[in-house]
Amino acid sequence: MSRVPGRHFLQIPGPTNTPLRILSAIALPTIDHRGPEFRILALDVLERIRHVFRTEGPVVIYPASGTGAWEAALVNTLSPGDRVLMAETGHFATLWSRMAERLGLDVELIPGNWRSGADAEAIGARLAEDRGHTIRAVAVVHNETSTGVASDIAAIRRAIDRSGHPALLLVDTISSLASIDYRHDEWGVDVTVGGSQKGLMLPPGLSFNAVSEKARAAARSARLPRAFWDWEDILAANRTGYFPYTPSTNLLQGLRVALDLIAEEGLDAMFERHLRAAAAVRRCVAQWGFEIQALDPGEASPSLTAVRMPSGHSADQLRSGILDRSSVSLGNGLGRLADRVFRIGHLGDFNDPALLGTLAAIEMGLSANSVPHRSGGVEQAMLALAERKHPSVLAAE
Amino acid sequence: MSRVPGRHFLQIPGPTNTPLRILSAIALPTIDHRGPEFRILALDVLERIRHVFRTEGPVVIYPASGTGAWEAALVNTLSPGDRVLMAETGHFATLWSRMAERLGLDVELIPGNWRSGADAEAIGARLAEDRGHTIRAVAVVHNETSTGVASDIAAIRRAIDRSGHPALLLVDTISSLASIDYRHDEWGVDVTVGGSQKGLMLPPGLSFNAVSEKARAAARSARLPRAFWDWEDILAANRTGYFPYTPSTNLLQGLRVALDLIAEEGLDAMFERHLRAAAAVRRCVAQWGFEIQALDPGEASPSLTAVRMPSGHSADQLRSGILDRSSVSLGNGLGRLADRVFRIGHLGDFNDPALLGTLAAIEMGLSANSVPHRSGGVEQAMLALAERKHPSVLAAE
Amino acid sequence: MSRVPGRHFLQIPGPTNTPLRILSAIALPTIDHRGPEFRILALDVLERIRHVFRTEGPVVIYPASGTGAWEAALVNTLSPGDRVLMAETGHFATLWSRMAERLGLDVELIPGNWRSGADAEAIGARLAEDRGHTIRAVAVVHNETSTGVASDIAAIRRAIDRSGHPALLLVDTISSLASIDYRHDEWGVDVTVGGSQKGLMLPPGLSFNAVSEKARAAARSARLPRAFWDWEDILAANRTGYFPYTPSTNLLQGLRVALDLIAEEGLDAMFERHLRAAAAVRRCVAQWGFEIQALDPGEASPSLTAVRMPSGHSADQLRSGILDRSSVSLGNGLGRLADRVFRIGHLGDFNDPALLGTLAAIEMGLSANSVPHRSGGVEQAMLALAERKHPSVLAAE
Amino acid sequence: MSRVPGRHFLQIPGPTNTPLRILSAIALPTIDHRGPEFRILALDVLERIRHVFRTEGPVVIYPASGTGAWEAALVNTLSPGDRVLMAETGHFATLWSRMAERLGLDVELIPGNWRSGADAEAIGARLAEDRGHTIRAVAVVHNETSTGVASDIAAIRRAIDRSGHPALLLVDTISSLASIDYRHDEWGVDVTVGGSQKGLMLPPGLSFNAVSEKARAAARSARLPRAFWDWEDILAANRTGYFPYTPSTNLLQGLRVALDLIAEEGLDAMFERHLRAAAAVRRCVAQWGFEIQALDPGEASPSLTAVRMPSGHSADQLRSGILDRSSVSLGNGLGRLADRVFRIGHLGDFNDPALLGTLAAIEMGLSANSVPHRSGGVEQAMLALAERKHPSVLAAE
Repeated sequence: MSRVPGRHFLQIPGPTNTPLRILSAIALPTIDHRGPEFRILALDVLERIRHVFRTEGPVVIYPASGTGAWEAALVNTLSPGDRVLMAETGHFATLWSRMAERLGLDVELIPGNWRSGADAEAIGARLAEDRGHTIRAVAVVHNETSTGVASDIAAIRRAIDRSGHPALLLVDTISSLASIDYRHDEWGVDVTVGGSQKGLMLPPGLSFNAVSEKARAAARSARLPRAFWDWEDILAANRTGYFPYTPSTNLLQGLRVALDLIAEEGLDAMFERHLRAAAAVRRCVAQWGFEIQALDPGEASPSLTAVRMPSGHSADQLRSGILDRSSVSLGNGLGRLADRVFRIGHLGDFNDPALLGTLAAIEMGLSANSVPHRSGGVEQAMLALAERKHPSVLAAE
Repeated sequence: MSRVPGRHFLQIPGPTNTPLRILSAIALPTIDHRGPEFRILALDVLERIRHVFRTEGPVVIYPASGTGAWEAALVNTLSPGDRVLMAETGHFATLWSRMAERLGLDVELIPGNWRSGADAEAIGARLAEDRGHTIRAVAVVHNETSTGVASDIAAIRRAIDRSGHPALLLVDTISSLASIDYRHDEWGVDVTVGGSQKGLMLPPGLSFNAVSEKARAAARSARLPRAFWDWEDILAANRTGYFPYTPSTNLLQGLRVALDLIAEEGLDAMFERHLRAAAAVRRCVAQWGFEIQALDPGEASPSLTAVRMPSGHSADQLRSGILDRSSVSLGNGLGRLADRVFRIGHLGDFNDPALLGTLAAIEMGLSANSVPHRSGGVEQAMLALAERKHPSVLAAE
Repeated sequence: MSRVPGRHFLQIPGPTNTPLRILSAIALPTIDHRGPEFRILALDVLERIRHVFRTEGPVVIYPASGTGAWEAALVNTLSPGDRVLMAETGHFATLWSRMAERLGLDVELIPGNWRSGADAEAIGARLAEDRGHTIRAVAVVHNETSTGVASDIAAIRRAIDRSGHPALLLVDTISSLASIDYRHDEWGVDVTVGGSQKGLMLPPGLSFNAVSEKARAAARSARLPRAFWDWEDILAANRTGYFPYTPSTNLLQGLRVALDLIAEEGLDAMFERHLRAAAAVRRCVAQWGFEIQALDPGEASPSLTAVRMPSGHSADQLRSGILDRSSVSLGNGLGRLADRVFRIGHLGDFNDPALLGTLAAIEMGLSANSVPHRSGGVEQAMLALAERKHPSVLAAE
Repeated sequence: MSRVPGRHFLQIPGPTNTPLRILSAIALPTIDHRGPEFRILALDVLERIRHVFRTEGPVVIYPASGTGAWEAALVNTLSPGDRVLMAETGHFATLWSRMAERLGLDVELIPGNWRSGADAEAIGARLAEDRGHTIRAVAVVHNETSTGVASDIAAIRRAIDRSGHPALLLVDTISSLASIDYRHDEWGVDVTVGGSQKGLMLPPGLSFNAVSEKARAAARSARLPRAFWDWEDILAANRTGYFPYTPSTNLLQGLRVALDLIAEEGLDAMFERHLRAAAAVRRCVAQWGFEIQALDPGEASPSLTAVRMPSGHSADQLRSGILDRSSVSLGNGLGRLADRVFRIGHLGDFNDPALLGTLAAIEMGLSANSVPHRSGGVEQAMLALAERKHPSVLAAE
């Protein structure tokens, strides 16, 4: 195999490019998960991870990838046959609903067009109808990674409140955590599901449940069988700085550094950085003459952009050519969007030249693959970036 | 905090000392889990991991630590209320039985003294009694990490066969895999549970289910709810080199190197290396005048030794002093053995000077903590090692 | 200090971006430089490094940075008062000539304008005049890192040959080795000076002398004092796989991997990759409306481009702003070019998106610093890249 | 090649085992040696390295291994034909004297038996005789790495002072720096030569000259040709945080961490740790019934021990067997001691179990190679260690 020179650009919407400081921390020797050094590590990350979710409550850390944290949110709070209201925002919302069905829940899926966020009004209306409170939980994906559409969780909270319905609110923030403004406590979320491999800039392998008091109360009567995912065992052990079973020690060593990096940059600066990048990507895509998957610009995700291919052209052929020639990985279309969109990840650890290099590689790929487009996309992206001061410049002013 | 110089000796019975070649591989940049480079990686490790279990069948790899693979073994094969026969060999067998109960299974636990292996005859007898075949599975821990006692899985297989009972055989090899001779196919095991952080020399975070055809057939009618742990989704995706949800890419990069190291040393040489180390540790402990937890020397584990403290002396104080002075981590007593035993891990990646340095640190710790003992333990260990040629020497002859 | 997110773009003309495979190799534990493992390493790199210089003769490896190898070339071949003919191609040629003077040599420096390569005709004419053969050596910088101008070494060889003069030919390839076509044997070079931190993609710390038979013969009568730099001690020890004093073991571990990477890509593909990048950079700079330092396009360096700032504008302010905002490091103007040029390194391990991201960051920096320019430079670079097939694509065809 | 499991024990008297925190720092990406980040790094290490030499004056850092710093000490201070008084303490003193001769100096070597330190009285007497002050410098090796004998530099200083002779005092501390008490200023040393790969716990590749005012004054009139090694160019550039030519950026990144580790442990604690280890090694060797190379126990080095083999037995065969079986590297006999001694490095980053594991591997090697000896060496070492409290325990009290 001939070598492809240069650093790879991992511009899928997660896993994201892991900073070397984090990779170095992960490569430190494994430590005794029952020893005093581990205890210091665990107490530190358990304390500080809460800030990322903007919660004062506990965050459960699983030695498992994000899909596991979906399952944890369900099995801790619900009982066989419980009704869950979900919104079909795209591929991942659909997968989560299928998981709920397989676990024996009664899923009511509000249909969607995979181009819009969850409809807060529709959720509120459905809850209002549900006088008997048969719906036990509303489960929504904050940032649908398959479509690049973000849902307005605060609005959903308001709609639930207006309906006066006691349903739990479960939110997947796997591709938004630490990239898009999110407030577990303020928005009254009961379980927030997160993963390590996106905005947290870690490899995959850790996942999270931020849990409200109401969620923990629900867990006490929930009857879906659970053991590995059980919150209370973990939280009890966490109080002393340990875990009930072997944690992912090396990823926790990486998490400590990730939390340092987040503190150094600042969550608000991170959010603005993602918004600024997203604006540049959209300006570029518009110049090319392509549509993005999000119908409402106000819902377009700050952390990724799904670009619709002109009909008759294969997104996967385009991606494959760009990967071979330019060593840039882009996200593929998932489910019904297979081969019809490509997804540009602009989340995690990146800067302007990485973003512009990515867009340039795509623009060159469009030409190389004879996909009709207007050139000048990268130049438009540069203009968009110039219009909006870089957060680090703002910070220095 | 003042720095403790020198390399740490992680001599707990897992996680084990991770070779730098593996740590370096884990610290390589995260790759696209849906891209062509990942596919090559996945197909390679999925193929080669089977050799470690000595199976021709598939091995399911979870992005989760070992306890998750316990749960996977149960939820894939069993239905609510199913009866499972287990043997109380120690703390981990007990934990697994409790997990089974929490998942809604009907556990029949053959009581044990935490100093012996699972009693094959008793298992056979119980199955023979079970004329109605209400017992669906026998679940045994191959190497009980809390006691340092290994069970004879081949004998259990023969006992099951003699009883003519169709129960599945589930075996936990978390602290024996790649350290103690084990044969999934030859011994007719239906589900073998493994983890990354012991004999495989990786950090925690990956776990395994090697599954027989019979187990997969059982899974088709098993009704415990399952989604994350479901074998068939994973195996279907694996056929193309991918996973149904985000795998632990960086640990899989490490697993590839671990499999290289195992191939370079050879499984049989690894087993002999562990047996030789275990013999040396026992000679040393005998010289000190201490008992080990295993009553029958033939059952003493090749991968760890649980040493019983003289009464009136605290194992945890001893361990703490050794850690502070010598930077050697030893395993603590678990459950009913808390503070009464300390456990010496002699598994994974180690050599003679690491083993002897560990034993020397313990012998010095006994003196420093005024634990009555005969000196000369390290010298006995050296003699024991000298009597039994090092496997690499054997290989070179 | 607030964190600057994203990967740094080290686009100075060396040190260059070190691939992670090399960094990982450097971070392996130090080995015994007198042991058998080191011997295997040393014999391997000593054998393979010769290919990079395109020589069948020996290459001396110093545990010292490149300036040391300059000194080595002089002290091994010359005696106090010896006359050396040099060409003032720029800052580094000037530094080398000053070093020669400090070492007690009689330097004759053919003046230059810092915008052209060494003048082969002038060298030949001067040698032809030197009937008494008082000139002992001609010393030329192949690729002047301060100006981005490459000299035609083959032409200089021909000029020397035509003059019938026996002078040694010493050539500095620090910023051309493994980036620009170079042939030690074919071009009859007597000492080629190289360094680790540019085309070889290593950190600084190793340097090289490729030496001809004629150079070694000259060394036998050369009387400049020398010890550390003495070739023969090193070459004698090298024959057995060792060094006469402690070598840079960890960088040699990195060199082994660097040679692997070079073999995987192929030297010719590397040269073409650098030529293609250089063409794109020049198209971009021309679009901006700036001059490059090289007057003759045929002499413009494939591995870096020195860009002249419009008068009245500070190159260093521009560079500083680009570093702060975009995390891209560019080379500064050296000596008389201070603040008047900035230098873009396009050598070592890079790909199209890294190059285009760099150019985009510069173009944005020009705007942010109000340096008058025509926009569209990046777009021109993309067109230039598209016109010239990527070497890996060529390889695959 | 079959794999040797376990961590290597690099117990040669340097290079030493590099802590992972340092290796990780070295593996960070190379930075621009002319940029602001480098300046912060350089100013920090230049300031803090002085403490390790116990000097208020400047320390010159070379991107070259230790032998280079020997050459630097000579060429900066001396002129062709200058007389230098040296003491033949062993192989390295001899090598340094040969280097001085090759550089054109007139070396007067006080003969030695390779088993004793430099004779302060003899040096004083020779200087007293030298009424014309033809001797320009006294050059001594503090800790002779080939013999494990340390010289008393303070006594030599007193002897020089008593003689009233103005000679410079040059001292090689390559294998003592940061391991054995050393005081550049207090002892009036003019040039202290150091290296990175021993007590500083770095890989080889950096070396040092700590220089007195008197040495710098001497340099102004010294006429040995010099360029690469010239102090003043470097010190002038250092004032602004830079170097006159490319420094070993990645090793300087490692040096920063090494200085952190030294500060965390404390120099005095490091010295005591080495003394304690040396005492244990000697007790062990005495039990084996072997002589050490140092005749006077008061001169035996705290950082290494050269052990004399019983006659008729090959030290190199012993070392080779220990390396193959136990993965422990020991130092070989050098020069006239070839095959007659083996050297145990007990310097740098190590702890009790590493030391005892090393001694145990040697004791096993003696048996395996049928070298007659008394067993029980390791046990004696343990007793010796127990008698002398570990410095970290002392620190905690």
